[in-house]
Amino acid sequence: MKRHLLSAGDLSRDDAELVLSTAAELRSLADRPIKKLPALRGRTVVNLFFEDSTRTRISFEAAAKRLSADVINFSAKGSSLSKGESLKDTALTLEAMGADAVVVRHGASGAPHRLAHSGWVRSSVVNAGDGTHEHPTQALLDAFTMTRHLGKLDGRRVAIVGDVLHSRVARSNALLLATLGAEVTLVAPPTLFPVGVETWPVETSYDLDAVLPKADVVMMLRVQRERMNGGFFPTPREYSRRYGLDGRRMATLQDHTIVMHPGPMVRGMEISAEVADSDRSVIVEQVTNGVAVRMAVLYLLLGGAQPVGGDE
Amino acid sequence: MKRHLLSAGDLSRDDAELVLSTAAELRSLADRPIKKLPALRGRTVVNLFFEDSTRTRISFEAAAKRLSADVINFSAKGSSLSKGESLKDTALTLEAMGADAVVVRHGASGAPHRLAHSGWVRSSVVNAGDGTHEHPTQALLDAFTMTRHLGKLDGRRVAIVGDVLHSRVARSNALLLATLGAEVTLVAPPTLFPVGVETWPVETSYDLDAVLPKADVVMMLRVQRERMNGGFFPTPREYSRRYGLDGRRMATLQDHTIVMHPGPMVRGMEISAEVADSDRSVIVEQVTNGVAVRMAVLYLLLGGAQPVGGDE
Amino acid sequence: MKRHLLSAGDLSRDDAELVLSTAAELRSLADRPIKKLPALRGRTVVNLFFEDSTRTRISFEAAAKRLSADVINFSAKGSSLSKGESLKDTALTLEAMGADAVVVRHGASGAPHRLAHSGWVRSSVVNAGDGTHEHPTQALLDAFTMTRHLGKLDGRRVAIVGDVLHSRVARSNALLLATLGAEVTLVAPPTLFPVGVETWPVETSYDLDAVLPKADVVMMLRVQRERMNGGFFPTPREYSRRYGLDGRRMATLQDHTIVMHPGPMVRGMEISAEVADSDRSVIVEQVTNGVAVRMAVLYLLLGGAQPVGGDE
Repeated sequence: MKRHLLSAGDLSRDDAELVLSTAAELRSLADRPIKKLPALRGRTVVNLFFEDSTRTRISFEAAAKRLSADVINFSAKGSSLSKGESLKDTALTLEAMGADAVVVRHGASGAPHRLAHSGWVRSSVVNAGDGTHEHPTQALLDAFTMTRHLGKLDGRRVAIVGDVLHSRVARSNALLLATLGAEVTLVAPPTLFPVGVETWPVETSYDLDAVLPKADVVMMLRVQRERMNGGFFPTPREYSRRYGLDGRRMATLQDHTIVMHPGPMVRGMEISAEVADSDRSVIVEQVTNGVAVRMAVLYLLLGGAQPVGGDE
Repeated sequence: MKRHLLSAGDLSRDDAELVLSTAAELRSLADRPIKKLPALRGRTVVNLFFEDSTRTRISFEAAAKRLSADVINFSAKGSSLSKGESLKDTALTLEAMGADAVVVRHGASGAPHRLAHSGWVRSSVVNAGDGTHEHPTQALLDAFTMTRHLGKLDGRRVAIVGDVLHSRVARSNALLLATLGAEVTLVAPPTLFPVGVETWPVETSYDLDAVLPKADVVMMLRVQRERMNGGFFPTPREYSRRYGLDGRRMATLQDHTIVMHPGPMVRGMEISAEVADSDRSVIVEQVTNGVAVRMAVLYLLLGGAQPVGGDE
Repeated sequence: MKRHLLSAGDLSRDDAELVLSTAAELRSLADRPIKKLPALRGRTVVNLFFEDSTRTRISFEAAAKRLSADVINFSAKGSSLSKGESLKDTALTLEAMGADAVVVRHGASGAPHRLAHSGWVRSSVVNAGDGTHEHPTQALLDAFTMTRHLGKLDGRRVAIVGDVLHSRVARSNALLLATLGAEVTLVAPPTLFPVGVETWPVETSYDLDAVLPKADVVMMLRVQRERMNGGFFPTPREYSRRYGLDGRRMATLQDHTIVMHPGPMVRGMEISAEVADSDRSVIVEQVTNGVAVRMAVLYLLLGGAQPVGGDE
């Protein structure tokens, strides 16, 4: 595995499977009374968040702490570090303070790549979401969740539904799932596909009802209401009617099909409460798996000194 | 003891005395050079604060860390988790990330109860203040402080003075002190008693000077100046004159009587500097005891794997 | 060494050299895979920041965690603790919660002194920057960095350049460097010297080009652009032309001369990118040394129970 995790597309099939199998070992920790390993003791993980994302920050923080790493949270919003200081100088500063890994969330697509490729930084950079570009650990936790329910993903059909245009989750999933052999169909209204989607390793469709009966996995994307006002976007009611997953549509799924959502959900908009709370929903499990997958990523990137599974 | 701590009224006398005796054991740690026990190693405590309360948050954080738990602070104000996401989904998310206890502060009365009784959450919920409703660990630390100075509380007279209407501290103390056998008198201007106070297990009075000479404990409540503008409330000067505790009034107390305040104080308003800094004042000790009581609560709720008092 | 670190001027030469030699021992930890010592296990360090300073806060946080102390971050901005509560009561509260050291950053000059000298606080107070007054750990890390490159500082010439008026870094450096035997020249436009600078143990100059060829160390200060609008201050372009360090000026330095900056830099304003990234620049090393120096300060103030250099 490389030193950084910047894009789901950088992972070879072997890389991805190593993360998933390591996560599976670590996932079993969650059922033990002491959910902690000494693997990364003395290492420092910095959460460098240029935009708020409590959910992702907490998941990485819990993952690092369970491996006994020290965690330093750094919300760059309004900090003096970010004022008039370049991203490069911020990175150099964190590295100089002893960061072994920098988990970075940034509003600009490509910021983690600039950090990793500045040439000065020896620490590992993990992309925790950059603009509308990528969110590779989300894709890994999604793939991990799918394999727990469906086994190998080769030939499995995954429908990713909603605001693909603004979704880093969709892009990272499309790349990783192709690597793992799954067949992805993106479902969205015409105005919510990104430019260049024809180069992605996916099918596309405007017709949710046509896609659902064939899917093994239905992944609903979060709708950002504030983007629904312009003339190009459907109204919330129209969106919900055409692309929302409700009980009637759920009834058309195959028995084994699971429903996913990266959270936070807007119940009643892209997904009904009935679906979110149904037996098919693995949404809460995704959160638990997220911690295990991020533990695996940090463990593999930082080359923990002790074997996974060792007792504290 | 139950799985959650939501209301001081939920505690039986046995429960309350178990917390107080456990706190007494843990309190002695504060005098040791290494103020830390391994009792909750590998457990995760999440501070879920929907409104700011640095004092309470830090007290719980110190308590959890002294028991070697991992602490994750989650200020929900303006977080993406809280945007468009229900309290239930937030709780499910924290639980799925492995929270063993969620310490929740919320502006709405009853929010911790909703969290605890959603039926999905296995972790322990601790109410760290909900609206104008309850603040049970404050009542426990107050009772703990009283017993250290006065012994058993049966028949002891406690005067709680000030803005009872907006005070969760007053309500939780009234409930807990009744359980422990003390006799509580609430003292306030007529407009600062809550509706239904006649159902509380307390006496009420408008006349501070009549109550003080008989009290074993005088607990002053914080005055929220921003609430003193309306026509129903006395002016600050009038309030201070009629309900403030100053040197002259302190002179009417019995020798053994102690003065308490939950903090933060507005010196000169509800309490004079002379009183706050006097030998009768146990206000600073309340803060120290707060950490010990919160350690006891977390320890008892999470069923620490090791006996209290064990060395690290 | 005293119980507090409030001013660089309080340090005797022996004190300062003890900090520097302890930091040298601790600095070597940074090259080990496990950068952690158990020296302050069970101790609590509170970062009490009344103004934002992510860089300084993170440095202290990393330092404390590497010594295995528990760290509690307390941003007082907008907290209920600071509302209507005196600095004294805030300090008493933190101490009562068990803080062994309080690292305080405050916008008002002298605030840490008031904290330390209130008479109630037993814990150690470390000044992490107060108004335009002092920043003693910055001076210590600067001196530490100089000694690593130049050996003993007796007779060494240090030029400190820029907005001396608003710089606590300049004042603390002037005091500490005099104690260590160095000769300091402050270089600034006439309007950016503070009142009373004639009582400082330094030379002053308006002419950067005359000072540079004789300096062993050139320390550039950060320019706060928002202060450059008034009639007393030069324009940014004028400032940069007369007091900025660029490649042309760097060429006039002696071969062994190093260039320093406390960060964050405004590249192109007080220092050009060419200089910041040159071999002479020790700016990134200053950050690393900052953690080691702060470890030394916390270790010496808290009287760690175990010898430095012991293994975990």
